[in-house]
Amino acid sequence: MATSGSVPTTPLLKDELDIVIPTIRNLDFLEMWRPFFQPYHLIIVQDGDPTRTIHVPEGFDYELYNRNDINRILGPKASCISFKDSACRCFGYMVSKKKYIYTIDDDCFVAKDPSGKQINALEQHIKNLLCPSTPFFFNTLYDPYREGADFVRGYPFSLREGAKTAISHGLWMNIPDYDAPTQMVKPLERNTRYVDAVMTIPKGTLFPMCGMNLAFDRELIGPAMYFGLMGDGQPIGRYDDMWAGWCMKVICDHLGLGVKTGLPYIWHSKASNPFVNLKKEYKGIFWQEEIIPFFQASTLSKEHDTVQKCYNELAKQVKENLGKLDPYFVKLADAMVTWIEAWDELNPTASASTATAATNGPAKK
Amino acid sequence: MATSGSVPTTPLLKDELDIVIPTIRNLDFLEMWRPFFQPYHLIIVQDGDPTRTIHVPEGFDYELYNRNDINRILGPKASCISFKDSACRCFGYMVSKKKYIYTIDDDCFVAKDPSGKQINALEQHIKNLLCPSTPFFFNTLYDPYREGADFVRGYPFSLREGAKTAISHGLWMNIPDYDAPTQMVKPLERNTRYVDAVMTIPKGTLFPMCGMNLAFDRELIGPAMYFGLMGDGQPIGRYDDMWAGWCMKVICDHLGLGVKTGLPYIWHSKASNPFVNLKKEYKGIFWQEEIIPFFQASTLSKEHDTVQKCYNELAKQVKENLGKLDPYFVKLADAMVTWIEAWDELNPTASASTATAATNGPAKK
Repeated sequence: MATSGSVPTTPLLKDELDIVIPTIRNLDFLEMWRPFFQPYHLIIVQDGDPTRTIHVPEGFDYELYNRNDINRILGPKASCISFKDSACRCFGYMVSKKKYIYTIDDDCFVAKDPSGKQINALEQHIKNLLCPSTPFFFNTLYDPYREGADFVRGYPFSLREGAKTAISHGLWMNIPDYDAPTQMVKPLERNTRYVDAVMTIPKGTLFPMCGMNLAFDRELIGPAMYFGLMGDGQPIGRYDDMWAGWCMKVICDHLGLGVKTGLPYIWHSKASNPFVNLKKEYKGIFWQEEIIPFFQASTLSKEHDTVQKCYNELAKQVKENLGKLDPYFVKLADAMVTWIEAWDELNPTASASTATAATNGPAKK
Repeated sequence: MATSGSVPTTPLLKDELDIVIPTIRNLDFLEMWRPFFQPYHLIIVQDGDPTRTIHVPEGFDYELYNRNDINRILGPKASCISFKDSACRCFGYMVSKKKYIYTIDDDCFVAKDPSGKQINALEQHIKNLLCPSTPFFFNTLYDPYREGADFVRGYPFSLREGAKTAISHGLWMNIPDYDAPTQMVKPLERNTRYVDAVMTIPKGTLFPMCGMNLAFDRELIGPAMYFGLMGDGQPIGRYDDMWAGWCMKVICDHLGLGVKTGLPYIWHSKASNPFVNLKKEYKGIFWQEEIIPFFQASTLSKEHDTVQKCYNELAKQVKENLGKLDPYFVKLADAMVTWIEAWDELNPTASASTATAATNGPAKK
């Protein structure tokens, strides 16, 4: 088949994609991304002290929101947006008016492929999102739509149309995304292996989604990309992207949407402090042992035919099933509902469009 | 963790692994494999005319079985072994007395990695088999046990021990394993992409297993590696490995065993004739649309605690559910039962050992 890898030349989706960057510092890292990001609109979510001025290099088109802006725009519903944690980035997803989002951390730089060429991560994410996924059966030659590849012998023809792709999860050269215990045990480990593959994470399989280098189709899955309650005033941090990943995957599986991981790589420059990380993470390390089986067992029904309905149902199940693990999950479940209310308020037509998306993406074609 | 990649230097598992080769021609292809295969014992299953003499290059240690041998050894049960189809290779799995099997087609040669180094496919398969798998949760950096890699943030610690690996499915440079229609549409397509990864196929996900370059732990999963009824007198061909792959994966998922795919690559030299292939395959192309959902829905229960019991139960389900698709499946289901009888006859202690294996490999540790 290899139908779709072919897309027009740069800049792809120029007016249909926002780049969301959560930050507490000057955005000098954008200099290195200039050739790739400059044509696009940036949404900067400033975390921490709102009186501080964040410097953005000349020539970038951006809007910037600090905590005061978030409070002003969302009013009491601003309580669902985390403070002093990069989880605040999901506010950017909510205020965007574009179909696609790319989000990247400000300590991520341009990586090189094995030939030494700079990797245009955004372009690869866009290709991933515009190509179908294959969540219903595994293809051993990886992405069957890529040039030079296809579906292998024994792959059912009825499934070769694939599913719409909702998520493109990119990876990291240099500093891998390890938890604090692993960072402590292997302080010198660096990821030097470039794996030249994009693959679909099969239906029914959960994975640890990292928010460092991530793109998604906001119309298809946006309301599920809530990064939870983390950081200031919360008992946990560094589980924002994990939370979003679990919720999102359960919903994508239910709605027949695809999730990809693999290329593109970015260069992750600096490991965060493992001691600080351990403090943020340690409850999550216990809790994930309960949370993951909960999400693995979670089911949605036919009436949950939009992302919003799915998400509110998950919030209900979180309260019922994880509330007994810790009162935090009751608070989180309430925040999930608030998030959807805020989303729908800022995106009055979005619920309609996601409903369409959902009915277009059945489990089988 | 990266516990286990470290294994003693060559030849790994010299006395614990047999190489099974189905063939109809002189085995000159072994010359290229000499540095890698010569220390091991070969089991050659000669297909077609048993009066023909197959030439095996000097210096290899082998036993060879032709159709007369198969008939003599199995008596009336020889009916379960295919004739005039490489499905006959599974006879070699049955007569082996070793813990591990590597099977390779005689049109497969040594491939090179991107640095130009010859790939010791067998060594990589052994590494894959000796390292645990991770079927219960997806690791985005691929094999977490490989040097330079680990489990990423958000991977439950309780699952980091992994599961025993039953299968190592290797890939192919040059001629990809395509079905006849794809071969016809893309006669010039070659696989030139070396993807430097080994990954576990998640629990609950089926895949198209190719028998061209395949290794497995015979003690853990051997009795499930039946390659079905293909070729002479049968309505179908080229689905032998697919059939084994579906049955095997359902059983591995049930018994908590792991299945890996990816490295190593071999060089697949020559595409088979697509017109001949189409004739062999065309019923399979229809049937797989029913067979795959059948296997996806198939369940085994707690009492099925050995590979043999699982396999006999699958045979029963095949007869009940696929028998109405075509009478062939009734015959195939009977052959599955015969295969297990023959296996147990030739491997009188094996049922005990697989029982142990099964109870050692629960879904969660």
